[in-house]
Amino acid sequence: MDELEIDAVAEVELDDPVLVEGLPGVGHVGSLAAEHLLEELEGESTLVRRIYSREFPPKVSIEDGVAELTCAEIHAVSVPDGRDLLVLTGDHQAQTNDGHYALASAFLDVAESFGASELYALGGVPTGELIEEYAVVGAVTDESLIEPLEDAGVEFRDDEPAGGIVGVSGLLLGLGDRRGFEATCLMGETSGYLVDPKSARAVLEVLEQMLGFELDYERLDERADEMEDVIGKIQEMEQQQQQMDVPTDDDLRYIG
Amino acid sequence: MDELEIDAVAEVELDDPVLVEGLPGVGHVGSLAAEHLLEELEGESTLVRRIYSREFPPKVSIEDGVAELTCAEIHAVSVPDGRDLLVLTGDHQAQTNDGHYALASAFLDVAESFGASELYALGGVPTGELIEEYAVVGAVTDESLIEPLEDAGVEFRDDEPAGGIVGVSGLLLGLGDRRGFEATCLMGETSGYLVDPKSARAVLEVLEQMLGFELDYERLDERADEMEDVIGKIQEMEQQQQQMDVPTDDDLRYIG
Amino acid sequence: MDELEIDAVAEVELDDPVLVEGLPGVGHVGSLAAEHLLEELEGESTLVRRIYSREFPPKVSIEDGVAELTCAEIHAVSVPDGRDLLVLTGDHQAQTNDGHYALASAFLDVAESFGASELYALGGVPTGELIEEYAVVGAVTDESLIEPLEDAGVEFRDDEPAGGIVGVSGLLLGLGDRRGFEATCLMGETSGYLVDPKSARAVLEVLEQMLGFELDYERLDERADEMEDVIGKIQEMEQQQQQMDVPTDDDLRYIG
Amino acid sequence: MDELEIDAVAEVELDDPVLVEGLPGVGHVGSLAAEHLLEELEGESTLVRRIYSREFPPKVSIEDGVAELTCAEIHAVSVPDGRDLLVLTGDHQAQTNDGHYALASAFLDVAESFGASELYALGGVPTGELIEEYAVVGAVTDESLIEPLEDAGVEFRDDEPAGGIVGVSGLLLGLGDRRGFEATCLMGETSGYLVDPKSARAVLEVLEQMLGFELDYERLDERADEMEDVIGKIQEMEQQQQQMDVPTDDDLRYIG
Repeated sequence: MDELEIDAVAEVELDDPVLVEGLPGVGHVGSLAAEHLLEELEGESTLVRRIYSREFPPKVSIEDGVAELTCAEIHAVSVPDGRDLLVLTGDHQAQTNDGHYALASAFLDVAESFGASELYALGGVPTGELIEEYAVVGAVTDESLIEPLEDAGVEFRDDEPAGGIVGVSGLLLGLGDRRGFEATCLMGETSGYLVDPKSARAVLEVLEQMLGFELDYERLDERADEMEDVIGKIQEMEQQQQQMDVPTDDDLRYIG
Repeated sequence: MDELEIDAVAEVELDDPVLVEGLPGVGHVGSLAAEHLLEELEGESTLVRRIYSREFPPKVSIEDGVAELTCAEIHAVSVPDGRDLLVLTGDHQAQTNDGHYALASAFLDVAESFGASELYALGGVPTGELIEEYAVVGAVTDESLIEPLEDAGVEFRDDEPAGGIVGVSGLLLGLGDRRGFEATCLMGETSGYLVDPKSARAVLEVLEQMLGFELDYERLDERADEMEDVIGKIQEMEQQQQQMDVPTDDDLRYIG
Repeated sequence: MDELEIDAVAEVELDDPVLVEGLPGVGHVGSLAAEHLLEELEGESTLVRRIYSREFPPKVSIEDGVAELTCAEIHAVSVPDGRDLLVLTGDHQAQTNDGHYALASAFLDVAESFGASELYALGGVPTGELIEEYAVVGAVTDESLIEPLEDAGVEFRDDEPAGGIVGVSGLLLGLGDRRGFEATCLMGETSGYLVDPKSARAVLEVLEQMLGFELDYERLDERADEMEDVIGKIQEMEQQQQQMDVPTDDDLRYIG
Repeated sequence: MDELEIDAVAEVELDDPVLVEGLPGVGHVGSLAAEHLLEELEGESTLVRRIYSREFPPKVSIEDGVAELTCAEIHAVSVPDGRDLLVLTGDHQAQTNDGHYALASAFLDVAESFGASELYALGGVPTGELIEEYAVVGAVTDESLIEPLEDAGVEFRDDEPAGGIVGVSGLLLGLGDRRGFEATCLMGETSGYLVDPKSARAVLEVLEQMLGFELDYERLDERADEMEDVIGKIQEMEQQQQQMDVPTDDDLRYIG
């Protein structure tokens, strides 16, 4: 196996498509958003590429007894009355610094081969506390992209996120810019402790406005309700614990 | 030394052989099984390949003062009235993610060079508690392989093992599938705390039915009896400890 | 993206320039010094090279919503009445041992391409305690370089720093020497606990004498005053703590 | 800088030389032995090769203000009335598994280029307790080498060292054997807690018999006396501590 192998599962003609990336990260915001997008637009979507890499964990996942080698997938989506999409999903990011560069480059190669020159990287930005109002924070490769995003409700803040954007989302902007992509990162605010379907919805609502598609949110809202129940139980436990001991953030990290 | 060097120790003619992998892993189930297989079929087996790699630990093992460089070995076994086998054993898995891909690819190369297109990866699946009845859980590369395995007593469970299969066994399925192998992983249930000859026997009994060989289990049962003694002593100690303190899993991790 | 990509942002003619390196390290002494140098000589400086590498963290930094891929930068500075400079700055060192070699080699390549054959690596040497008098410790690639540095107040000590010099500063000397560079490392003494503008000033004052430029230190002194305030508060806290508990070095590590 | 660069410092003619390796390891036994050998045979030795590598730490050591890039060195020694030697010393082993393979291969390349086909790897084997009688344990690449070593007092034990030999000493045997070297590892017993000149002397006394040179041990014995003083103080401290608390091995790890 080479460092990287790209399987061409199907070929489709797309008109000036936009790459939308949703790999796992903070609060699983990006992956929840991208997977919901694919579920809701299932009728219009086609799996076009599988990307295998020695940079992924050496692993197969098992469903009903059948093994699937870890990979990233790119679906082509022909949205009626909207922009064509290339949606990038997967179970893993790269396992090394070097691997992040290799995979982000490969994703851009595929996007270019379909004629894409714009991209949206979806993710979460951790706030450290439970959230009432879900703001979406933006970062772009060119100042000219800011105004239309602000019109869609995206917030741009001085020096935020403070530590920059790390991993594939960051590199899709950084390496994308060097290759002439207009790239935007949309980061839904999220506590950072829990899988966060509400934050994913906030990000998708911005994307709807920017790219001209419309989604039903019933399934995502159901998952949000399930999380509400979990949060409720955690808060109960916390109150009980506070009468006994100091609770820690680790108690509620990534339950979903 | 190159990243990988394959020594051709002997050449033999095999008829449609099946690769059987038993490298170290959970409960040493896979390696116990493969080594027992080789011991019992010693008269019919020939060491055909040694695989050296910079992905293995930088180590020699010492026996009677003589050093042997860490490697994996493949024996050819001509089973009377059964399928020919290629049995893969060794003291180590790769030390990095990337190395797992490199070695699994090399193992498949060797198997292909002997005309193999089927494989069994043997291992253990940890249950976290001492076991009475040793089930064998399966995973395959193609749904059509499930029925004959179920007939041989293998269990297929939804989404189990939950975290997928990691390491060389997982990749032999994942990479094997991409190269046209029909691949099966047989995982004996095991506590995960102890070297487990009983679990290895459960796995081998499935393999006997699938591949048409017959083994004597006396030596493996003797090792199982030795482990029973160890378990008995641990349980005694636990009972004594419970009167004093809380015991930990670490007390009994991998005694063998 | 290749392991290394060097963008030629501008071309300038330099006369026998000296490479001055100030990447992050102990007390941020080197980076504070190099950045202050660039700020004060802004009128005479031009960004000439950006160096991108898979050895840097996979990250973009965000300023006013616009993303910048992690890189190192080299500015050319034409100092009136002084030596021409190539000033190397950046937010990160390499993330692996191997990466340090790759990046240091690349920095030397760029310096050579501008005709440089001398270099100064700037950094800090930790003393473990707050400092009153800021000595500058030196290390060189050739004994003949020591005397003029001692005349400028640099101290050379037997076997100090005891553990040698690790990272890009060390390799610029080690690899530079192998390529014929006359290389000097100037290490300002610093506690090791705090970002240290005073230590950076001590280093720059040596450099002024060696290379014939003159700097205003107002901005650096302001930062030093801010740090004094921080130190004052820490010392207060320590006194309060000592009445309660034993304080640890970790309480004051890298506040800046 | 390439992954590996070998500087030819001098050329000498050697007659069937033997490679003697003494890089840092348990109790610094191997490096103490090789360095003592070079000191005592200084009049007959010539530095012939320096080996630089990206596998070494990215570091320069400083002596009297002058920086030296981390490397391994090979000296040629023309022993009167004895076998010619190639003595390999250095401050570091490789930093990664993969690096151990790369460096051991390079060392064998150099040895071969001088016509060597035999080697001795020197090191220590930890016993976990302070030692009265310093046995030397051996491991070889071919059974035929055992008898003459036993005649020189070397002990060969079943399956010892139990974990095999890791690092450059192990690989010089493992890779050396694959290239036709007759290779021996001499391991002086040592507590594992302290730099151990007595163990180094025990190893060198075996080597004297095997290779026909004679050494004065005054300097090594002086270092041993210094260590005795340290051990005496530690034992005093331990006795005092035992009256207060349980001492730990970490208290005395590698004082030297």
